[in-house]
Amino acid sequence: MDAHLHHDHDHKEEHLKSSDVLRDVVIGMSDGLTVPFALAAGLSGAVDSTNIIVIAGIAEIAAGSIAMGLGGYLAGKTEQDHYSSELKREYYEVDNLRHREIEETKEFFKNIGLSEDLQNKATEEIAKDKKQWVEFMMKYELGLEKPDPRRATKSALNIGLSYVVGGLVPLSPYFFVDSPTEGLRISVAVTLLCLFVFGWFKSKMTGIQPWWGALKVMLIGAVAAAAAFGVAKLFEG
Amino acid sequence: MDAHLHHDHDHKEEHLKSSDVLRDVVIGMSDGLTVPFALAAGLSGAVDSTNIIVIAGIAEIAAGSIAMGLGGYLAGKTEQDHYSSELKREYYEVDNLRHREIEETKEFFKNIGLSEDLQNKATEEIAKDKKQWVEFMMKYELGLEKPDPRRATKSALNIGLSYVVGGLVPLSPYFFVDSPTEGLRISVAVTLLCLFVFGWFKSKMTGIQPWWGALKVMLIGAVAAAAAFGVAKLFEG
Repeated sequence: MDAHLHHDHDHKEEHLKSSDVLRDVVIGMSDGLTVPFALAAGLSGAVDSTNIIVIAGIAEIAAGSIAMGLGGYLAGKTEQDHYSSELKREYYEVDNLRHREIEETKEFFKNIGLSEDLQNKATEEIAKDKKQWVEFMMKYELGLEKPDPRRATKSALNIGLSYVVGGLVPLSPYFFVDSPTEGLRISVAVTLLCLFVFGWFKSKMTGIQPWWGALKVMLIGAVAAAAAFGVAKLFEG
Repeated sequence: MDAHLHHDHDHKEEHLKSSDVLRDVVIGMSDGLTVPFALAAGLSGAVDSTNIIVIAGIAEIAAGSIAMGLGGYLAGKTEQDHYSSELKREYYEVDNLRHREIEETKEFFKNIGLSEDLQNKATEEIAKDKKQWVEFMMKYELGLEKPDPRRATKSALNIGLSYVVGGLVPLSPYFFVDSPTEGLRISVAVTLLCLFVFGWFKSKMTGIQPWWGALKVMLIGAVAAAAAFGVAKLFEG
């Protein structure tokens, strides 16, 4: 059995926390390596100067990192607002619609397969402590986890920066050569290698077979670049 | 109290299912409207012909839609594989490490606040039916929901197509005019309007205050476009 997937709980929780940053880096870098790479490849087939490719690439990196970073930040803020308003609602309902909440709690225990006797007893015990009851309803009735208030900002920065770092990899060859075709050749080699290495570590992290995972990540990049190259050629002609 | 957030369960579940497609459309369109818009805006400040902008924009749309669509498809497949392998593992553990699984189930009931007596009784009842027990462990110990096998493909198509549709909005003005500055002016007007309308519906759908939500979505687009314009100018000079 794969040791990586063994679920020792303490270990798992620790693993999850330390991987919040990694998860953000993966999100940002996977798009950062792919989209600017494909855009630059697409333009290489359609323009004569690397200058245009560099300008377009830099503009894309700015646009993409802000869309992902700022988008992620605002989504995180919304999640917090949503959690707070649902929390207030649950407290309100526990106080004022107690009967309905009791029914909903019993329903949960019924769904997981407890007998009616235990449904009643378990509900009674949980409902004794209001805070505990509300926490239970938030997590298991609504499926909401308490969001970390500082996550949104940190996450936005991590994702945005990773996009920039990822995007500079495929773009950098075009800084140093004059011919788009030569830039493309180096960019393809460097980026596919990076995508493979990145995909390997990403797969290791998420417990997927790493060679297959690495191949998949590289494939997405290659297909996107080929498609961008194709349509750009089409529109140029 | 906001009628929209009232949680009537049947209604809610139906709402969630019908909004799977909408959610995909929102994901694809939000990036599709923003990134190609910002890229085209960035290039408008740095190049003389709308031709380059159209080619770069089309290449970006191809790259972005494939990265998002294919990426989403493979992520969905991975989620399914992960679910299947965890399901097998749970069945194995229930058969061969019964004692440990009993402890983990008791732990769950302890964490939600049941007395030791009820922890034991509830665990005993759940463990009677193996299928029911495994389903319980999958959902509440591991937090995994059974993924719909056809979701991955559908989701990829919806996201990819929405990206293309979204991306053609900011790009279309450049098809019809020769001056990048004029194209930019029309593109800004059309796209900010679309972002606002799109943000309004998106917020309505997710239960956020719609005017504020619309403003936020429009703001992300505007900031991304301004930044792309700024860095493109910088690198052109």
